[in-house]
Amino acid sequence: MPGHFTFFSEEIENGVARFGESESKHMVQVLRFSLGDEVWCSDGKGNRYLVELDFISKKEVKGKVVQTLTVDAPEFTLVVGVLKSTDRMEWLLEKTVELGLKRLIWVACDNSERSKIFLDKLMKTCVSAMKQSHGAWLPILEHMNFKDALDQYGEGAFFAHCTDGLHYSASDLKSDSVVFIGPEGDFSAHEIRLAQENGLKELQLGSRILRTETAAIAACAAANL
Amino acid sequence: MPGHFTFFSEEIENGVARFGESESKHMVQVLRFSLGDEVWCSDGKGNRYLVELDFISKKEVKGKVVQTLTVDAPEFTLVVGVLKSTDRMEWLLEKTVELGLKRLIWVACDNSERSKIFLDKLMKTCVSAMKQSHGAWLPILEHMNFKDALDQYGEGAFFAHCTDGLHYSASDLKSDSVVFIGPEGDFSAHEIRLAQENGLKELQLGSRILRTETAAIAACAAANL
Repeated sequence: MPGHFTFFSEEIENGVARFGESESKHMVQVLRFSLGDEVWCSDGKGNRYLVELDFISKKEVKGKVVQTLTVDAPEFTLVVGVLKSTDRMEWLLEKTVELGLKRLIWVACDNSERSKIFLDKLMKTCVSAMKQSHGAWLPILEHMNFKDALDQYGEGAFFAHCTDGLHYSASDLKSDSVVFIGPEGDFSAHEIRLAQENGLKELQLGSRILRTETAAIAACAAANL
Repeated sequence: MPGHFTFFSEEIENGVARFGESESKHMVQVLRFSLGDEVWCSDGKGNRYLVELDFISKKEVKGKVVQTLTVDAPEFTLVVGVLKSTDRMEWLLEKTVELGLKRLIWVACDNSERSKIFLDKLMKTCVSAMKQSHGAWLPILEHMNFKDALDQYGEGAFFAHCTDGLHYSASDLKSDSVVFIGPEGDFSAHEIRLAQENGLKELQLGSRILRTETAAIAACAAANL
């Protein structure tokens, strides 16, 4: 639906959609929607709603759902080493949410230069990207250590690292694949050995050395398109 | 060659590589290379050189080429509507140079919010991306109007726009494809008609609305990987 704007509502019950303060401000003060107008919104859980606005205040807007569409869920999962730059993590999310992302697990790797991340802030980027791309699904974001990610998501997963001559390539990816991507400086030799011992499929993405976020976006594009 | 740093030298003649001021500073003052050390560099024209440093000053470093590798040229061409944000144009270039880009033509479109761009600054981003990814090719950057781009690059090209039900998809892209991607707000109805009249292949990249730079990176990934 190009040309339409998609809003986000966390609270849709009994045919009534409620919009929080920042969405309401944007809708009314910036985009000048008013009573009786129809807007598209999503709940981030696969539904798109056409809503007729019937209550407007400074902090809240509500409306009646007049049409509901359900959208197929993205199936692609990424497990990505925590990056030094929050900007690059946000870009990675923006692009992969646009392309189709079910779940992203941030892992603290041997070569990650930090361990702390703010999932709330990253989720805001996902909300923006979902709205921008007229999507209907927010990804699940998690944060865990490498070993737990291997245990939970390693089965059948691809493991991309910067060694030449790996067996699998982008054309082996499917829309429901799980792909591990290392942080700046790649996975450590120890992590690569663990992945090999767990039977992960070693994946090479082209002949050049890709940055983490480039590799993640490229894998997501290859899997989805 | 992960782990190595790749430098850029515009001047390699008779087996001697010369590095300009900023490369020299980075090499000597930041990375602490000294006389007799070997460094990898590229000329951006398909060659990678191993160079033994034999002259170091504050503004210039020189060395003797001791090994030369040639690298296959990327073949993928993008024709992209000028974006409002320089950041997003730089990101687009960084990612597509990593993935493999022969040429990028920026076009002033009906929906482009500006026409002026700085190719010199954008080329610096390409140099960084080439170095970072241990590549050996810099793309050709051009800037022209939409009609000229159609005339020069339209034959056999793909034309991505945000309409549903287009005939071609990402799986039709080849490594030497030419892909037109619209600016924010997409190509105008007039531009779409011109492309249709010129026989361009209308391309749909998935089911969601992608931002310009996401579409460009996704097409480049699909074509190269």
